[in-house]
Amino acid sequence: MADFYDVLTIGNAIVDILTHVDDAFLEKAQLTKGAMTLVDEERSEYLYQLMGPATEISGGSAANTAAGLASFGAKAAYIGKVCDDQLGHIFRHDIKAAGVHFETVPSKNKPATARCMVFVTPDSQRTLQTYLGACVKLLPGDIVKNVVEKSKITYLEGYLWDSPSAADACRLATQYAKQSGNKVALSLSDPYCVERHRTEFQHLCSKIDILFANEAEIMSLWQHNNLKTVIEQIGKITPLVIITLGAAGSLVVYQGSVITIKPAAVRQIVDTTGAGDLYAAGFLYGIVCGYPLKACGEIASLAAGEIISHLGARPAVKLAKLLKDSGIVKE
Amino acid sequence: MADFYDVLTIGNAIVDILTHVDDAFLEKAQLTKGAMTLVDEERSEYLYQLMGPATEISGGSAANTAAGLASFGAKAAYIGKVCDDQLGHIFRHDIKAAGVHFETVPSKNKPATARCMVFVTPDSQRTLQTYLGACVKLLPGDIVKNVVEKSKITYLEGYLWDSPSAADACRLATQYAKQSGNKVALSLSDPYCVERHRTEFQHLCSKIDILFANEAEIMSLWQHNNLKTVIEQIGKITPLVIITLGAAGSLVVYQGSVITIKPAAVRQIVDTTGAGDLYAAGFLYGIVCGYPLKACGEIASLAAGEIISHLGARPAVKLAKLLKDSGIVKE
Repeated sequence: MADFYDVLTIGNAIVDILTHVDDAFLEKAQLTKGAMTLVDEERSEYLYQLMGPATEISGGSAANTAAGLASFGAKAAYIGKVCDDQLGHIFRHDIKAAGVHFETVPSKNKPATARCMVFVTPDSQRTLQTYLGACVKLLPGDIVKNVVEKSKITYLEGYLWDSPSAADACRLATQYAKQSGNKVALSLSDPYCVERHRTEFQHLCSKIDILFANEAEIMSLWQHNNLKTVIEQIGKITPLVIITLGAAGSLVVYQGSVITIKPAAVRQIVDTTGAGDLYAAGFLYGIVCGYPLKACGEIASLAAGEIISHLGARPAVKLAKLLKDSGIVKE
Repeated sequence: MADFYDVLTIGNAIVDILTHVDDAFLEKAQLTKGAMTLVDEERSEYLYQLMGPATEISGGSAANTAAGLASFGAKAAYIGKVCDDQLGHIFRHDIKAAGVHFETVPSKNKPATARCMVFVTPDSQRTLQTYLGACVKLLPGDIVKNVVEKSKITYLEGYLWDSPSAADACRLATQYAKQSGNKVALSLSDPYCVERHRTEFQHLCSKIDILFANEAEIMSLWQHNNLKTVIEQIGKITPLVIITLGAAGSLVVYQGSVITIKPAAVRQIVDTTGAGDLYAAGFLYGIVCGYPLKACGEIASLAAGEIISHLGARPAVKLAKLLKDSGIVKE
C-alpha cells in the first residue's frame, strides 16, 4: 500500500465483451441503442449466443477511470468485486498491470465475475448489456478505511447504486472520506441509472465535492429540459460540476461561472466506450496536479479523445506521454 | 451437422492473451523472439504477472484457419479440446459464432483451457508463450469418424504433436480421411515444433496431400540450408507444397514446377499473429472452389494481408467480401 493515493475509485468490476454489429442487430435483439441495460444471467447467455465473435478487455466504468489516472502517472487505487474465476483473474491482472492498487477480496462462489456485452455500431456508438454477477456482493466491509483516508479524492460510479449492498458501501466510503477531510466525486453513469436512483442522487449532490455527468444524465437528475436552468440549480448545490456534451465538448461549472471546454481533435472515432470514464480520469488528474480548471477540462478531453480512437475503454498509449506532447500544461 | 464440410481443421484450442511490449521486455523475460515456446502452468503464471494490461481473443492455429474458411463462405468444421471453464466457453462461443461446426466435448476437470500469451513488438512481430492446458486431453476418441468422412480436406496443425494423445488423434484422423478418399493437409506450425517432431513429420510428408510451411520450417524439416534443394526433394514426396516467405510472398510447388505468389499489399502491419493460419485458410478455400493454384495463392495472400493489418488472428472483416472486391477471381 502506498503512503497516499491521488484518487480511489469504486465501481462495478466488469470484463467487457466487445463486438461489432449493425443497427438491424440491435433491433432484432431489442436493445436500447446507446444505453447501459442490466440483464440477468439467462438474458446475458441468450444475447451472448446471438453475438458474433468477440474480444474480451477489462472494463468497468470507475476501473477504466483508475487505469486512466495511472496512465497519467497518478497514484490510483480501486475497490470492486470480482469472483475468484478466470474472468476475475483477468480483471485483477489488467488493473494491477495498469499500476492501480487493487486488493478487494474476490468472492468465492457464484455469481461469476460481471461481464458487459458491448455492441459497437458503424456510427461508433456503443450499446451495453451488463450482467452484474459478483458485483452485487460488494459490501461495506470491502471499503478499506485506511485506503479511503489516504486518498485525496474518492470517486464513485452511479452504477453502484444498482446493488443495495454496493450502495451501502458507497455511503460508508463517503462517510470515511468526509471524516478525513478528503473530497468525494460522483459520476451519474447513465440517464437510465439516474432514473432508477434519482432521489438519492439528488440528495448526494449536496454532500459531494465534484459531480461528473453528461447532458442527458443531468437533465434526467433534475427533470428539466433546459440545460441553463439545470446549471444554475446544480451550481448552488455541488461545488464543482462537469457536464460532458459528447462531440460538442464539455462545461465546467464552478462558483457560478461556466467554463467551456472544446473537444479534442480525433482522427477517427472507433468506439465511444469509456469516453466519460477517461474524461473523468483526465479531469481528476488535472485536479490533483493543481492545474487550472480549464486545463483540467482540456486534459479530460485529451484522454476521452484517445479512448474513442480505438476499441476498448482502457488507454492504448501512455496518457502521461500524450499529455506531455499536447502542450496543454508545462511540466 | 452439415451434409459435408469443405475443410475440417484439427488443432490446439487456445485463447490468445495479447499485449504490446518492447524488445527490452523480451530480453528481460528471456523470450525467443518470433517463436512459439511451450510453457508449464507455473511459467505461464509468472509471465502473466510480468505482462501489462492485455486483450483476450480466441486463437489456436487451426481454429484461426477454420474461422478464416468460414469467413470466406466455406463449410468448415473444427476439432479441439477446451476445458468446461470460462475461457473454454469464450473459445466455443467465438468459433461457433464464426460459423464453424464445433462439437468436441470439453474436459470437465483441470487443466484449464489453453492460453497463449502473445507479445507484440513495435516491429509487429509476435512472440508466443503457450500453456497447452486442456489441449493435452485431445484423444483419438474425439475424432468423429463421420465428420472426417464428410470433409473434403482434413487439415492438421503440427503443434498437435506436442501432446502424445493428440498426435494419436491426428494419426486416426489421417487414417479415416485416407480410407474415405479425402485429402489430408498438414501445417508444420513452427521451426522449433519441426525440430521436436522431425522424424514423424518427414514420414508424414509421404502420406499427406498438401503441406504448408514457411521457409524456416521446411529447411528445418530437411536440415538443408538451400531452399532450391529442399523444394526439389519435397516436390517428389508431397503432391502439393506451399512455402510462405513472409514479406517476400510465397511459393507453390506442384508436379515439379514452382509458382511464385506475390504478397498482398498491406497498408500497415500491426500484428503478424495468424498470418500463416489465414494464408492456409485462403489457399484451402481456393482449392475447394477449384480455382487454379496461382489464384489459390493470391487468395491466401489476401487473407494473410487482412489478418496482419489488425490485432488478433481471426478476421475482422468478411473475407468473402474482401475476395469479391479484390477481383482475383470472377464469381
